[in-house]
Amino acid sequence: MFRKLLSLDEAKQILKQNFSPEPVGVERVSLSEAHDRVLAEDIMAPMDVPPFDRSTVDGYAVRAVDTFGADEDRPVALKFCGQVTVGESPSIVVEKGMAAEIATGAPLPKGADAVVMIEYSTRRDDDVFIHRPVSKVENMMEAGSDIRKGEKILKKYQRLSSREIGVLAALGLTEVDVYKRPRVAILSTGAEVVEPGKPLPSGKIYDINAYAFSAAVLECGGEPINLGIIPDDRTRLKAAVERALDSADAVITSGGVSVGPKDLIPQVVDTLGKPGVIISGIAVKPGKPTTIAIVDGKPVFSLPGHPTSSLLMFHMIVRPIICRMAGRTEETPSTLKAVAATKMFPARGRRTFVMVNLTYDKTGKPLASPVPTGLSGAITTLARADGFVEIPEKQQFIDVGTTINVYLFYE
Amino acid sequence: MFRKLLSLDEAKQILKQNFSPEPVGVERVSLSEAHDRVLAEDIMAPMDVPPFDRSTVDGYAVRAVDTFGADEDRPVALKFCGQVTVGESPSIVVEKGMAAEIATGAPLPKGADAVVMIEYSTRRDDDVFIHRPVSKVENMMEAGSDIRKGEKILKKYQRLSSREIGVLAALGLTEVDVYKRPRVAILSTGAEVVEPGKPLPSGKIYDINAYAFSAAVLECGGEPINLGIIPDDRTRLKAAVERALDSADAVITSGGVSVGPKDLIPQVVDTLGKPGVIISGIAVKPGKPTTIAIVDGKPVFSLPGHPTSSLLMFHMIVRPIICRMAGRTEETPSTLKAVAATKMFPARGRRTFVMVNLTYDKTGKPLASPVPTGLSGAITTLARADGFVEIPEKQQFIDVGTTINVYLFYE
Repeated sequence: MFRKLLSLDEAKQILKQNFSPEPVGVERVSLSEAHDRVLAEDIMAPMDVPPFDRSTVDGYAVRAVDTFGADEDRPVALKFCGQVTVGESPSIVVEKGMAAEIATGAPLPKGADAVVMIEYSTRRDDDVFIHRPVSKVENMMEAGSDIRKGEKILKKYQRLSSREIGVLAALGLTEVDVYKRPRVAILSTGAEVVEPGKPLPSGKIYDINAYAFSAAVLECGGEPINLGIIPDDRTRLKAAVERALDSADAVITSGGVSVGPKDLIPQVVDTLGKPGVIISGIAVKPGKPTTIAIVDGKPVFSLPGHPTSSLLMFHMIVRPIICRMAGRTEETPSTLKAVAATKMFPARGRRTFVMVNLTYDKTGKPLASPVPTGLSGAITTLARADGFVEIPEKQQFIDVGTTINVYLFYE
Repeated sequence: MFRKLLSLDEAKQILKQNFSPEPVGVERVSLSEAHDRVLAEDIMAPMDVPPFDRSTVDGYAVRAVDTFGADEDRPVALKFCGQVTVGESPSIVVEKGMAAEIATGAPLPKGADAVVMIEYSTRRDDDVFIHRPVSKVENMMEAGSDIRKGEKILKKYQRLSSREIGVLAALGLTEVDVYKRPRVAILSTGAEVVEPGKPLPSGKIYDINAYAFSAAVLECGGEPINLGIIPDDRTRLKAAVERALDSADAVITSGGVSVGPKDLIPQVVDTLGKPGVIISGIAVKPGKPTTIAIVDGKPVFSLPGHPTSSLLMFHMIVRPIICRMAGRTEETPSTLKAVAATKMFPARGRRTFVMVNLTYDKTGKPLASPVPTGLSGAITTLARADGFVEIPEKQQFIDVGTTINVYLFYE
């Protein structure tokens, strides 16, 4: 009955040898749909930004050399030769000794190579007096100084925030290639689970995992497909997992992986394709019965029925895979360094995850305290935790005051 | 021409006196749409979780008192009285001296008050030998021990992650009240801006702000409505802002707020309702021309045309307001403490924001270095920055090695 379980690191290693998570495809989306997606192409600037020499102030476009020697008391006198407003293509030419009135953002007229701020000029009819010299390209942005035509300005795998969307708009782009969201089929098993909203017969509980996983898949950049609750029957389970594999890029099941006679999931999954079940139990607490199969290139994660265990294993094992399949490069949950507020103990011989809350001391230093619970199946334990702490198999305990890594449940 | 500008703190104070950002409404959504929304109701548990006394192990349901004194060599002998599987409503009763086989997750039969793990039992026909005593409620979860019926389990203003969605599912809830996403109308002005995708005539640039703001509004939990580019014409601008106010809860315009004769936005907005323009320029760099109006209870943010300036002002002033209107309680951009890697100087007499990149030293300590740029309109400055540092009006400089707050551009 007892057998040597894989350690978490061994399990991760075996998973890595059998499955390389890669983006599942590319699709073209409009700029207004591109937010929070992951770029699937390098963006080479198709044009200069700004596209022309541009004034960054209101003032006079001049030849810098004409202003040399100007000062407050002995201004240089230049001849007014016209006006340039924003959005126009200037036809005037600033010859030697001339100055053109120019607005912020307007293109520099030919001949001019700098702009004098309006504050340092006075004007009398067609005479423009310059009270301060400017050097070449002062108060202007040269064409291409922000982005040079042909420059690789954004790289494949860049996640697109408002700032990158701004860059794409600056280049006049309206569509962009992004990685497809991986479809993740989710199914629950177990004679005791009932769909929320239905009446709850005595002895049954509502299906938590399908909903929690669906939201967690969204958090990874995936698209959840909730296939609902499948009865504990070999034929129906097989049909459901086959349907899941047909319609999705990865499958998550929950329940049905303990040692009971009705725990059919591993048996069923193992018949569906090669190599089949590669991980059958992991020495972690909670989460021990976790089973992982690869079926013809698609991963099937069979997680325990207990919501805290299964959502924790989702964070540790499934999340990095789905993130990678979505093109996201962050491989692990984000972490934060905190100080242990109490002693924490591992379960004997198993890597143990302790749910913790974070508080902050007066200096802003984060302190981690275990969420009080003795309840391995408690959904509230998870909802009340900010993250979890990992205690290695061989460590006796974490002492008060030790600096530890806290894996955060949120980004 | 020069006038005393409001400081950023004065401007924020005036904004606060004139506008209290509140959620714009409530809508009911299904659990599968609730992810990342903000709860608009307190959730009182309509039932116990678990709904019944539940075994947390595979083993035998017993009366704890019957096992007292059991040990490895002298087991207590109990009579097998039946089997309880998960999902069923047990009809058997565990009388004194009896034991019922029970699976993980199955309901405890009447009479039993603890479970002995299968590892500590042996069975011969109808005799069950218990090798270790259990105390009352050992290896079981009592009904309501996770969530008690009537308990306030989630509070209004809670943002819903996968973990809270799990709690709602546990309670059998399928719908929940969340705050409506505030609609934010976005319009660009300026003779020089052209919609991305259209041909770019000489002297023009593509409209960056409308796209960057749309994505930034999504990041705040709002719903952007991009009204496009409005020509610099008083009648058309007025009609556009009126349309924006009709269709949205807040309006953001960009461009048209400098001192040029075509900068009509403040004049137009001031005619539309009370109190009208409340802030007309702020002593910050960049972002000085920022104008804010309240028109019959709706805020109109008129930001400069330069993308870096306007997106920075969005982060400082607009973002906290839209977040609050979306029901999010985080009021300011998130910050991180970092060490200044170089000296940083403010612009004279103005609160200055310096865009910075973060790197990490060997101990993991973050270092902030200014993004190299002299270009106030550069969109790439923003895209390359991780965040910004605020230098107060009266501070001379930030010295190398000082610990400073970095406002992050991402959450």
